[in-house]
Amino acid sequence: MKKFVYSFGDGSAEGSASMKETLGGKGANLAEMCNLGLPVPPGFTITTEVCVDYYKEGKKTPAALKDQVSEALKKIEDKIGAKFGDATNPLLVSVRSGARVSMPGMMDTVLNLGLNDQTVEGLAKKSGNERFAWDSYRRFIQMYSDVVLGVDHYIFEEIIDSIKDGAGVSLDTELNINHLKELVKTFKAKVQEELGRPFPTDVNEQLWGGVMAVFDSWMSNRAIAYRKIHEIGDNWGTAVNIQSMVFGNMGDTSATGVAFTRNPSTGAKELYGEYLVNAQGEDVVAGIRTPQSITKKAREESDSDLPSMEEVMPNVYKQFIDTCKKLESHYRDMQDIEFTVQDNKLWMLQTRGGKRTAAAALKIAVDLVNEGLISQEEALKRIDPSALDQLLHPSLDPKAPKKVIAKGLPASPGAASGGAVFSAEEAEDAKARGKDVILVRIETSPEDISGMHAAKGILTARGGMTSHAAVVARGMGKCCVSGTGTLKIDYKAKQFTVGEHTVKAGDIITINGTTGEVMLGKVPTTQPNLSGDFAEVMKWADSVRTLKVRANAETSLDAETARKFGAEGIGLCRTEHMFFDQDRIISMREMILAEDEEGRRKALSKLQPMQREDFISIFNIMGDFPVTIRLLDPPLHEFLPHSEEEMAEVAKASGVNIEKLRHRAATLKESNPMLGHRGCRLGITYPEIYEMQARAIFEAARETGAKPEIMIPLVFGKKELSILKNVIDKAHKSVAPKVEYLLGTMIELPRAALKAGEIADVAEFFSFGTNDLTQTTMGISRDDSAGFIDDYKSKGIVEHDPFAVLDVEGVGELIKIAAERGRATRKDIKLGICGEHGGNPASINFCQQVGLDYVSCSPYRVPIARLAAAQAAINAKIEKKKAA
Amino acid sequence: MKKFVYSFGDGSAEGSASMKETLGGKGANLAEMCNLGLPVPPGFTITTEVCVDYYKEGKKTPAALKDQVSEALKKIEDKIGAKFGDATNPLLVSVRSGARVSMPGMMDTVLNLGLNDQTVEGLAKKSGNERFAWDSYRRFIQMYSDVVLGVDHYIFEEIIDSIKDGAGVSLDTELNINHLKELVKTFKAKVQEELGRPFPTDVNEQLWGGVMAVFDSWMSNRAIAYRKIHEIGDNWGTAVNIQSMVFGNMGDTSATGVAFTRNPSTGAKELYGEYLVNAQGEDVVAGIRTPQSITKKAREESDSDLPSMEEVMPNVYKQFIDTCKKLESHYRDMQDIEFTVQDNKLWMLQTRGGKRTAAAALKIAVDLVNEGLISQEEALKRIDPSALDQLLHPSLDPKAPKKVIAKGLPASPGAASGGAVFSAEEAEDAKARGKDVILVRIETSPEDISGMHAAKGILTARGGMTSHAAVVARGMGKCCVSGTGTLKIDYKAKQFTVGEHTVKAGDIITINGTTGEVMLGKVPTTQPNLSGDFAEVMKWADSVRTLKVRANAETSLDAETARKFGAEGIGLCRTEHMFFDQDRIISMREMILAEDEEGRRKALSKLQPMQREDFISIFNIMGDFPVTIRLLDPPLHEFLPHSEEEMAEVAKASGVNIEKLRHRAATLKESNPMLGHRGCRLGITYPEIYEMQARAIFEAARETGAKPEIMIPLVFGKKELSILKNVIDKAHKSVAPKVEYLLGTMIELPRAALKAGEIADVAEFFSFGTNDLTQTTMGISRDDSAGFIDDYKSKGIVEHDPFAVLDVEGVGELIKIAAERGRATRKDIKLGICGEHGGNPASINFCQQVGLDYVSCSPYRVPIARLAAAQAAINAKIEKKKAA
Repeated sequence: MKKFVYSFGDGSAEGSASMKETLGGKGANLAEMCNLGLPVPPGFTITTEVCVDYYKEGKKTPAALKDQVSEALKKIEDKIGAKFGDATNPLLVSVRSGARVSMPGMMDTVLNLGLNDQTVEGLAKKSGNERFAWDSYRRFIQMYSDVVLGVDHYIFEEIIDSIKDGAGVSLDTELNINHLKELVKTFKAKVQEELGRPFPTDVNEQLWGGVMAVFDSWMSNRAIAYRKIHEIGDNWGTAVNIQSMVFGNMGDTSATGVAFTRNPSTGAKELYGEYLVNAQGEDVVAGIRTPQSITKKAREESDSDLPSMEEVMPNVYKQFIDTCKKLESHYRDMQDIEFTVQDNKLWMLQTRGGKRTAAAALKIAVDLVNEGLISQEEALKRIDPSALDQLLHPSLDPKAPKKVIAKGLPASPGAASGGAVFSAEEAEDAKARGKDVILVRIETSPEDISGMHAAKGILTARGGMTSHAAVVARGMGKCCVSGTGTLKIDYKAKQFTVGEHTVKAGDIITINGTTGEVMLGKVPTTQPNLSGDFAEVMKWADSVRTLKVRANAETSLDAETARKFGAEGIGLCRTEHMFFDQDRIISMREMILAEDEEGRRKALSKLQPMQREDFISIFNIMGDFPVTIRLLDPPLHEFLPHSEEEMAEVAKASGVNIEKLRHRAATLKESNPMLGHRGCRLGITYPEIYEMQARAIFEAARETGAKPEIMIPLVFGKKELSILKNVIDKAHKSVAPKVEYLLGTMIELPRAALKAGEIADVAEFFSFGTNDLTQTTMGISRDDSAGFIDDYKSKGIVEHDPFAVLDVEGVGELIKIAAERGRATRKDIKLGICGEHGGNPASINFCQQVGLDYVSCSPYRVPIARLAAAQAAINAKIEKKKAA
Repeated sequence: MKKFVYSFGDGSAEGSASMKETLGGKGANLAEMCNLGLPVPPGFTITTEVCVDYYKEGKKTPAALKDQVSEALKKIEDKIGAKFGDATNPLLVSVRSGARVSMPGMMDTVLNLGLNDQTVEGLAKKSGNERFAWDSYRRFIQMYSDVVLGVDHYIFEEIIDSIKDGAGVSLDTELNINHLKELVKTFKAKVQEELGRPFPTDVNEQLWGGVMAVFDSWMSNRAIAYRKIHEIGDNWGTAVNIQSMVFGNMGDTSATGVAFTRNPSTGAKELYGEYLVNAQGEDVVAGIRTPQSITKKAREESDSDLPSMEEVMPNVYKQFIDTCKKLESHYRDMQDIEFTVQDNKLWMLQTRGGKRTAAAALKIAVDLVNEGLISQEEALKRIDPSALDQLLHPSLDPKAPKKVIAKGLPASPGAASGGAVFSAEEAEDAKARGKDVILVRIETSPEDISGMHAAKGILTARGGMTSHAAVVARGMGKCCVSGTGTLKIDYKAKQFTVGEHTVKAGDIITINGTTGEVMLGKVPTTQPNLSGDFAEVMKWADSVRTLKVRANAETSLDAETARKFGAEGIGLCRTEHMFFDQDRIISMREMILAEDEEGRRKALSKLQPMQREDFISIFNIMGDFPVTIRLLDPPLHEFLPHSEEEMAEVAKASGVNIEKLRHRAATLKESNPMLGHRGCRLGITYPEIYEMQARAIFEAARETGAKPEIMIPLVFGKKELSILKNVIDKAHKSVAPKVEYLLGTMIELPRAALKAGEIADVAEFFSFGTNDLTQTTMGISRDDSAGFIDDYKSKGIVEHDPFAVLDVEGVGELIKIAAERGRATRKDIKLGICGEHGGNPASINFCQQVGLDYVSCSPYRVPIARLAAAQAAINAKIEKKKAA
């Protein structure tokens, strides 16, 4: 017969820590603690499989369950020497849920189960403590009614408050036996009134009610929502843990508490926890009484009057400290522990890996390695790369008050405060005057780049996580909140309104790009501090990983940041960003408005020396590291003014006929610019542009000794590349024939992926432009996905925003095809990725699997990518071992 | 040694008609005529390979060529009994180019080669006709100087004119011997003056000069341009034909002429041609004298005074008629023939398949089948399906004078005249007043549909062959000229200017959608006449093809047209086109502006009965044929007004707050609508829309007994389809549970093609939306491709506009993948194509190869698709036989 129930207690258990899938995290760890010989109240775990079955079979449990539970209950009775439901010597139990991972929204705990009007008397007599017995009884009714029967808990709190008022006391512990008996009576009457049926007195009914409540809580809306967000399968199910009660509320020799074996904020090696004397578990969390420190040191540091456990119960404290050490060295990680002291005896109720901040994660990892508890690889595997982001940007002081007025998308992490400005020019002006500003735009365009540079942060009303604003801000390491749909921005009035609030130009606001919050006024921030632990972990990561990590960078500042964060080259240097500077855009527009090739060449010849200087500067910063330069990519209309007002301005400034300007702008306008006249298509129609850029690159390379990698965007076949190779080779021969260079291409269109075999005849490297490849493969414009992507996520159509996490099944198949076909033609072709996904850990793991040579991401994500690449390498090693 | 030269003459030849690749069309057919025993002046052909080598080796010919030519020349001398360059008995030759297909821009002919001051005397003596000899000499110098030496021909014409003036005569034939001698002298002096060197007197120098001139003409600009347009490989090369001269200019018993064995305009079985007495070939073409009819009947019909060849040379005529019959029955096709009569003896100079109109092609095919010359399959293979288009639309009277002021893209065939109007409303008003109008727009949008319906034709300044205007116009069978970039349209002034011309509202213009021409005034048109031959050929096609042919249709008129043209169902019924009618758009906008689902449902409930009636009408017209209905596809902003003016109008008409309207329009605005919130994404976010449409379909099906096929657009995976299947199933259960229906999806995104295996779990059919699949696979917006697609074609990056002819290598691979994976999951899944490519013959052939079940195209292309499908089936049979 199938085993649905696993018993534990008295120094042994049927389960173990390795059985989390079957027993849930809590159950597996309870079993493990028993096996370690730690004092755990005996009990048993009903497997997750029963829960899965429960839902499969229309909320029915397997027939065999009842007998197995009875048997396991019998074992507890034998161990404890008490009997469930017995009027004179009653066994009480707790019922707790326990999925593979801990999950808010699931049923937490029912304590003291097994009490009724008979057993309460038995408990009173047996314990010799009538008050304790009735306190336990009223707690049980309160908890069970709330958690299992669904009677709102505030109803009971009101009753307690009114009885306390009547008695003239303020603490629960001040209530006497009669008060408690009255509470029980009133509670039961209230339950009858609310539900139209009495509170269950049969202990078995109570037990099964508790078990079913755990199963039902698996499908509570909150649990479902949590699973959606954290990508936990609905089909995992939860286990149920039933355990004999131990009582922290048996008087002043009893207590209950929670502790971390190390400081979860800083990672310091010091016990960190709280306890309450004469209390049950929920009291610590509920905040009814002020918890006390466990260690004397902590009590002193917090300047508390309340004695520490170390001082009050030195023996138990010593035993607890030993237990903590034992658990930490057994699990080889910082533990989050729950315990109860019953009449000076310590009982362990839970242990699990403790949640921690990114800084703590680094410190603990380094310390555990130094303590010899774990290997470097193990340490690397435990750190969430994405969490490093917290360390690399300023963050809001978590203790500061704040007034959140809107919430957008957390488009680029970090936080910043400043006066609101509504145009790039104002941002630049304000910066020149030494003011901090937040640039507020409906959406940004390449023309706003200098304003974005000048601003402390960027706030937009439209656009997703990979909109222009988001991508550029991340590249700059500036915080950005995008797609804040509730914002109504009025450029003319220079203000925005959101709900009842109006923010005018100059009003100070704060944005948090890590959460998407928009706040009124200035909220204090704290600066990042890259400690020695960070550097240490990065060193380990670098020694393990096989993927190279490069950065996407186009300015000297970007390049310097990239090197600071450990980038091993530039994977994407977007040349167009160099054309938006005030002095360059004029020549660029002159080029666009030229009537013929000669006119274009004239304008380009003005841009060429500037481009050359840009490249010289970048080559010098990057030294021997490779620099991949992408030739002009965006459609030309992005460089022209859009509004009539701007048009008039530009016409005046550049002396061009406004009618001509208007006509050219109208001609260049596109319905779907993403799929328009851009990328290599510009090079095909205006070869002189790419020729100028190639010249600038070669001249810079000649001067600096760099070996540039020239990258052609948006090809869909070999021929475009061959034609443009001729253009570039011509420039090469005439400028710097002795400069070595590589020619490669972006693979960013499905057709390019399919034709990669032929393309590799010409291309010496591929760089997967996964932003555009995702847009075209899935047919989703990243700038327009806001209207439906949330629905797509909530309905399970996509697991993640495909612009944040690579769509492995679709886009990934094309990458695999391209890598295979490319390698079949050119065995040593260099393969990299330079889309936004290059900085996403899950996507980096995929890049490792496909065997790419490098990933490239925004400079501020380089450390994340380095760590993720190390994890990917470790995963690959494990997979290889498994396969062998 | 490699054979570079193939001889022919005297009833035998080294080559044959099957060797066109080596000998060119002309050379192969000359050999074939020799083999048939027809009188062909002896000669030889230098192979195309020599030309290919000539360019490979930097304009050098193979060493062995000279000897092979000498040998072949010797053979001619032996056959003729004359000697090349001999002063007393000279052999003269002609030199002609001859590629695989005939090609304008290539060197045509040099006649009389081998004459100089010595040989002309020999010719005079030998022929006993001094005038003939000197006439030949002056012709040779004139032709050779023009064609080989590059001296402009008008220089010689001026000299002839001045000598004629001096002599007081008007025809060349009136010049006497002295005049001709003087001409020769003056010509030679002129050549010396122009080139600084004398006209070559060495006959071998003459010969090789002619051969090289043929090779050089292969790379003339005109030839290159022609090959680009007609997709002829630059690497084919041309052959050179050298043939002993026969003379049509030896007096009144000599003549030269051209003829078609049937009438190339009508296809009628009657000899159709012209000849000139005492002339050489170029005289017929040059139009110096009026050519005469060959047959008496034709002479009588044309009411000519000049006698026919039948009357003047009855014996030669009879021989010629016999030869024509022989050639036609040998080649089993209508022939285009050149001949010369020398002193009452007939010589054949060329035969080839004759070009013909579409109507003639049909008649000739039917006649040849009836005459037992060819099989039905052979007849089907010979008709160019695209040419049928000429027959299905009104066309311009080719004889009418016309004033072309601009040229756009031939977006939808046919021709129409009418007053220019600049808005859809004006078009409707004008139609209501009984006026014919041409709708002139910068570009069209779905709001213009009713105006497009009302207009006779559509003219746009922007947009390609597959722009909105083009696609909709083709669907309606209306002519359309799109992308006429030179047009400057001023909506406010209600006029457009192009160059010096200004066309105001109401001015009559004519557009020719078959050529892209825009003309001032009314040019008369002729109506299509679908003759019995058309029906006959269609019947044969239907009996051969295995692909079904459906139509894309959404109105009753479309559906009726589709059936008239033989469609076997509707493959794409776009439901959104039903929402643009004046009375419906109001409810549609109400739906878009609604605050919540309830508001949307209210508006939808007004649209539902109208949709139901649409479907009832279409189901009734289509009877038992399948109808595939695509649920709402375009983004919602397409239904909102765009300009401030329209916005105000709509706000007023519908009583909506303009501020709200503006805000909603701004919120819905998209950067790349093609990749935006459209297709099934609308169904996911607003299921009530699809539910309403499904209800309307099921109610209509219940009433008519139809078995509808419901199609979901723009899925990229299985999940969207599953979710929407639930929505549709719900509507089905509540409305018409007994109505049978199929649920399927468009495959129009690369990811959908890759995930087709999973999608087929739910989808009962796939319809390849190759427009969008091409856009996403290649990353090209069809509305924005005009800026570069011509460059892409001219540089050989794409062979065709990928929106006209399916990109087999890229998009095609995805279709293959999807078909395979779909069938692997669901063996009998129905596969079709409903993009524009469904009406393109080359693409239809691909559909046959991949094994699709049907193609669907605009109603007016259904006959083309039927014929193309027949050809594809025949091709498949041949391939299968080859493979076996």
